[in-house]
Amino acid sequence: MNIIEIIYKKRRGIAHSEEELTYLIENVMSGKVPDYQLSAWLMAVCCQGLNLDETTWLTDLYVHSGQTLDFSDLDGMVVDKHSTGGVGDKTTLVLAPMLGACGLKVAKLSGRGLGFTGGTIDKLEAIPGFNVNLSVKDFCEQVKTIGLALGAQTAELAPADGKIYALRDVTATVASIPLIAASVVSKKIAAGAQVITLDIKVGEGAFMKSLEDAKDLAYTCREVGKRLGRSISTVTSFMGQPLGNAIGHTLEVMEAIETLKGKGPQDLTELCLTLGAVTLVDAQKAPSLEQGKSLLKEVISSGKALDKLAELIETQHGDVRVIEDYTLMSQPKQKIKIVAPTSGFVQHCDALKIAAAVKSLGAGRLSKGEPIDLSVGVILHRKIGDAVKTGEPLAELWVNEKGKAEAEALIIEAFEFSSQPISKAPLIEELYLSHDLATL
Amino acid sequence: MNIIEIIYKKRRGIAHSEEELTYLIENVMSGKVPDYQLSAWLMAVCCQGLNLDETTWLTDLYVHSGQTLDFSDLDGMVVDKHSTGGVGDKTTLVLAPMLGACGLKVAKLSGRGLGFTGGTIDKLEAIPGFNVNLSVKDFCEQVKTIGLALGAQTAELAPADGKIYALRDVTATVASIPLIAASVVSKKIAAGAQVITLDIKVGEGAFMKSLEDAKDLAYTCREVGKRLGRSISTVTSFMGQPLGNAIGHTLEVMEAIETLKGKGPQDLTELCLTLGAVTLVDAQKAPSLEQGKSLLKEVISSGKALDKLAELIETQHGDVRVIEDYTLMSQPKQKIKIVAPTSGFVQHCDALKIAAAVKSLGAGRLSKGEPIDLSVGVILHRKIGDAVKTGEPLAELWVNEKGKAEAEALIIEAFEFSSQPISKAPLIEELYLSHDLATL
Repeated sequence: MNIIEIIYKKRRGIAHSEEELTYLIENVMSGKVPDYQLSAWLMAVCCQGLNLDETTWLTDLYVHSGQTLDFSDLDGMVVDKHSTGGVGDKTTLVLAPMLGACGLKVAKLSGRGLGFTGGTIDKLEAIPGFNVNLSVKDFCEQVKTIGLALGAQTAELAPADGKIYALRDVTATVASIPLIAASVVSKKIAAGAQVITLDIKVGEGAFMKSLEDAKDLAYTCREVGKRLGRSISTVTSFMGQPLGNAIGHTLEVMEAIETLKGKGPQDLTELCLTLGAVTLVDAQKAPSLEQGKSLLKEVISSGKALDKLAELIETQHGDVRVIEDYTLMSQPKQKIKIVAPTSGFVQHCDALKIAAAVKSLGAGRLSKGEPIDLSVGVILHRKIGDAVKTGEPLAELWVNEKGKAEAEALIIEAFEFSSQPISKAPLIEELYLSHDLATL
Repeated sequence: MNIIEIIYKKRRGIAHSEEELTYLIENVMSGKVPDYQLSAWLMAVCCQGLNLDETTWLTDLYVHSGQTLDFSDLDGMVVDKHSTGGVGDKTTLVLAPMLGACGLKVAKLSGRGLGFTGGTIDKLEAIPGFNVNLSVKDFCEQVKTIGLALGAQTAELAPADGKIYALRDVTATVASIPLIAASVVSKKIAAGAQVITLDIKVGEGAFMKSLEDAKDLAYTCREVGKRLGRSISTVTSFMGQPLGNAIGHTLEVMEAIETLKGKGPQDLTELCLTLGAVTLVDAQKAPSLEQGKSLLKEVISSGKALDKLAELIETQHGDVRVIEDYTLMSQPKQKIKIVAPTSGFVQHCDALKIAAAVKSLGAGRLSKGEPIDLSVGVILHRKIGDAVKTGEPLAELWVNEKGKAEAEALIIEAFEFSSQPISKAPLIEELYLSHDLATL
């Protein structure tokens, strides 16, 4: 067996054996496979694919390339939720406390923002003092004590994926369904979750542009999970426009807290209830999605979910007063109203352009480690299907010095109007429970 | 424009613009594109292809990445012949003196052997004293004075191809028709030839395993030549069994000289006459292939072609006495007869296995710069279609200490026999003159 032969096989569309993939990943980890050979193999995979056997082996090899967390001695199921990334997606900030309040153990490691997507870890840092850098030991300990921990991804889990992801990022080999599935599922398994709920975003503001690709990714992840003994459910949700109304770090934390107070935007609330209900059913805390949703609504109306967030913030050394006083978070110098240039119905609210606007204000990074401005962002006053009259507010920009004019132009460009009424975009496109109980 | 975008486009099967390819090659040459990005692009090209426009631009970019030779001040056409490589292919050693004797200027730069193919330059070094390392200046000068020069490829011509070829070799991206075409044609154009004849080998012993691929490569080369203003003709010839009877360095020089004496094997003679006639027609030295062949037969029977070889050897400081005394070349310690294990007709004489046998004796190299044994090899006494009786000679091995048993076993394995008569394999599969005058 040698690496050139392995590359050649994949180039010709021949399926790998488990031994071949093991040989490949072992030699990648020991540094014996140079990057130029690995990237040739990755491109061959992008063009020729991996079948479910290969994807499962690769996922398992990623998992065992590093440390794995084990919560099997805990009372109660450890759950995790992951989104493939979109614009305005603050679901974790809402859902994790809700599930914690329902008695589940939530152990979630998240990433930082890169490109057009924001990162949960960056958002948490909008809360003054909040410590995202938990050691593996402290992370596990916190899951045991308060039933909930949110930390930054560590290089100790699934390092093979980390190494390969860095190369994919610079060789146009990111958008590959089997490689994405192996990356996502391996990190979740290595982090010890027994029940995993995946939110697969689809639309212009997501990595998966077509519903077909999103369904394919969802299916691949569920199937790999099943073969590796984990329960994985998938929800495929629309990301043609931003999720919720707030985009930007301080703004998204505010909207997440509002949602936990029962005053969140309709789409964000619906998605959190759906993802949460799926998780509760899989973790056998609810017999049906409907009953799961009822449980979740209860922990919101009773204030238990908000209390759980407060407990989380306190445990991770954040300033818990932000829950009542949003101005304790980083604030912008100026707020600019943007008004509708015409009357009609919003027929498009382009997630990528809005993300670009927020990025131009300083909230995004082009390379790892760059500092970002947590205070800037945009609040959308209208979304797809909403009526608006000329001069009525469309959005509000939270800005400092940087990129004002550019952001304003991008927001205006993001909106398209129709003179005819437009129906709201459906949020949930597809839903599969791990045990195939229910579909949409 | 950036490199990741260019890789991504090719991955998606989108054709490049001339500007994109220029950007790519310029940045490869300046060292700004790391190997891992280049290899991802190469694999995308292998999977998605390049159209004729792209292949032509790439060829032209290769040509202009380095020095180009210019013979336009010379009287008479400068011609060149290139083979895509096979087993036992000593055509250049025969054809170059023949064409020189017909009054053409032959300027040929060749490579060394790697993998299963031998290299003309290694074969020339079997002639004691023969200097293959001509400077560009001396090479051009010799073409002018004696009308014929054979030298080792230099890094100064088409360096972009050199750089990219080295990477293709270790990333399983060699077998790509547009990349092969650009590599072959660019080197020929940079070396100054006005008339180029390509011998595209097809069969188990060649890079092109199928006739379809060989025809495709032939067509691509002709078309790129036409677009870049050079006359390129192609002959597609069978490489399912070795060409001629001798494989090994000393042995192939002997067979080439025998062929120039009019005593060569039928297939090698036929191929040299065909390639030579094509070149003469393209260079307007003969009005038809038939008349071209007559001219070539004349320079053999008159001894002029052999004289030209003698002049070449003398000019490049080789020992010209080898023409009459083959023992002046490196000789093996032992010659071993291999006899037929059965009676019948040879139905297969596997070029790859025979090449492997010769390699195991020490005549091949696995990596550049390795020393090789020039004295070892094999003489085939039977080829496809020949009758043989049990115990009659099948082949003779020329060996030193190394790999005797392995080589013997491989030769026996290479032969397959039928009890029924087998027709000889057709040598020329397809022939296209650059101006489409004639086909087979």
